[in-house]
Amino acid sequence: MAQTVSNSDLFEWLLRLGDNALILGHRCSEWCGHAPALEEDIALANMALDLIGQTQLWLGLAGEVEGKGRTADNLAYLRDAHEFRNVLLVERPNGDFAFTLMRQFLFDAFHIELLESLKSSSDKRVAEIAEKAAKEVAYHYERSADLIIRLGDGTQESHNRTQAALNSLWSYTGEMFQDDAVDEAMAEAGIAPLPSALKARWEAKVYPVLAEATLKVPDSKYAHKGGKRGVHTEHLGYILADLQFLQRAYPGCTW
Amino acid sequence: MAQTVSNSDLFEWLLRLGDNALILGHRCSEWCGHAPALEEDIALANMALDLIGQTQLWLGLAGEVEGKGRTADNLAYLRDAHEFRNVLLVERPNGDFAFTLMRQFLFDAFHIELLESLKSSSDKRVAEIAEKAAKEVAYHYERSADLIIRLGDGTQESHNRTQAALNSLWSYTGEMFQDDAVDEAMAEAGIAPLPSALKARWEAKVYPVLAEATLKVPDSKYAHKGGKRGVHTEHLGYILADLQFLQRAYPGCTW
Repeated sequence: MAQTVSNSDLFEWLLRLGDNALILGHRCSEWCGHAPALEEDIALANMALDLIGQTQLWLGLAGEVEGKGRTADNLAYLRDAHEFRNVLLVERPNGDFAFTLMRQFLFDAFHIELLESLKSSSDKRVAEIAEKAAKEVAYHYERSADLIIRLGDGTQESHNRTQAALNSLWSYTGEMFQDDAVDEAMAEAGIAPLPSALKARWEAKVYPVLAEATLKVPDSKYAHKGGKRGVHTEHLGYILADLQFLQRAYPGCTW
Repeated sequence: MAQTVSNSDLFEWLLRLGDNALILGHRCSEWCGHAPALEEDIALANMALDLIGQTQLWLGLAGEVEGKGRTADNLAYLRDAHEFRNVLLVERPNGDFAFTLMRQFLFDAFHIELLESLKSSSDKRVAEIAEKAAKEVAYHYERSADLIIRLGDGTQESHNRTQAALNSLWSYTGEMFQDDAVDEAMAEAGIAPLPSALKARWEAKVYPVLAEATLKVPDSKYAHKGGKRGVHTEHLGYILADLQFLQRAYPGCTW
């Protein structure tokens, strides 16, 4: 029989889901008005909206579970960097369009596998959010995979940029599959799969696309980590400065 | 006999001086660790320190004149964009090194002429700050003029970049010399010269340097304006998000 988890572990785990969606959503939103083509501008803005919508659900549930009266907005706008639990991959700066898309692709492939598993979570609230989010993220993955192939197997310039993005981001993928005590508690309770258990499925989604894109997977096994326990790169602070300005400058303001 | 000015006019005018120094100082500080040579990195950081030091004096006096208990820190960290009174020139993004230096040069030439005049201000507090600041800014001007000549009359690449910076920034210089009711009140009270009265002296400092740098002064007489009355470009908001984060996130924190 499945064990129960402490509210503090569940809260911590929900923050990881919410913060991944929030920070990647913010990064996508930074392209608004700057993407290389109108179609891409709209697509990035739509992904941003999907991800921010998912953030509201995950952080909303996190606040409920915590039981201290914090809302999704409180959690998004009033925590400082060391309280964020997103993986480092999603806070990487946008770079060029190839870089943004590679970051998206590498995360989408993880994200869709995770959400598909969560649809059968023992926690019905988690399963419901996953059900809704998976529909959106399936489309994100399809689109980013398609574009990675077009850019990787495109011109020499687009190939080089896409390969450079892969080289730069590869060492940020390992963190997604590292288990810790919180992950183990979730797995034992049947709430979520172990991150490490998703790795083979992620590889099955990622490697064929990279091969078709004529991209070479880097050899390195090194993995940057820290985000899941609140140790972030300098970039997160700048994201929060932009993201949180309004609520920091006008506390409690609404519209 | 000189007229007296209202505290609200004097406050407004002091904000302009303080905010020009604060925002340009922040822009200089953004180069810290990124300048093209160690010597330049240190020089930009030193200018940032000079300008932030001047900010403390001007905004400190502004808070005193206002008489509502606000300190220089309050004014720097807790006002929103529409309450800032800097000219638009100083909030222009750094761009490349030539762009940063051209912005600095165009402002320094104005700044030194203004400060030299303020040394004989009828307001002793103003005269004292100007006395101190003028020593620092004389050096800023000397350095930026020297570098503009070296870059403009350097390689084809450095010439092109410096000319592009001049073309882009020229239409932001006019705002420095536009008089309004506050400026007129200051001039009538003998506190400060009319901005328009500084223009010929600025041109006498700027034109010979640009000529020696083999740069062509743009024809356009168009002047972007608004900063002096709080109407800013989008860039100021991003500056404030970075600049104010700590005090916004941890109100009243000290070290």
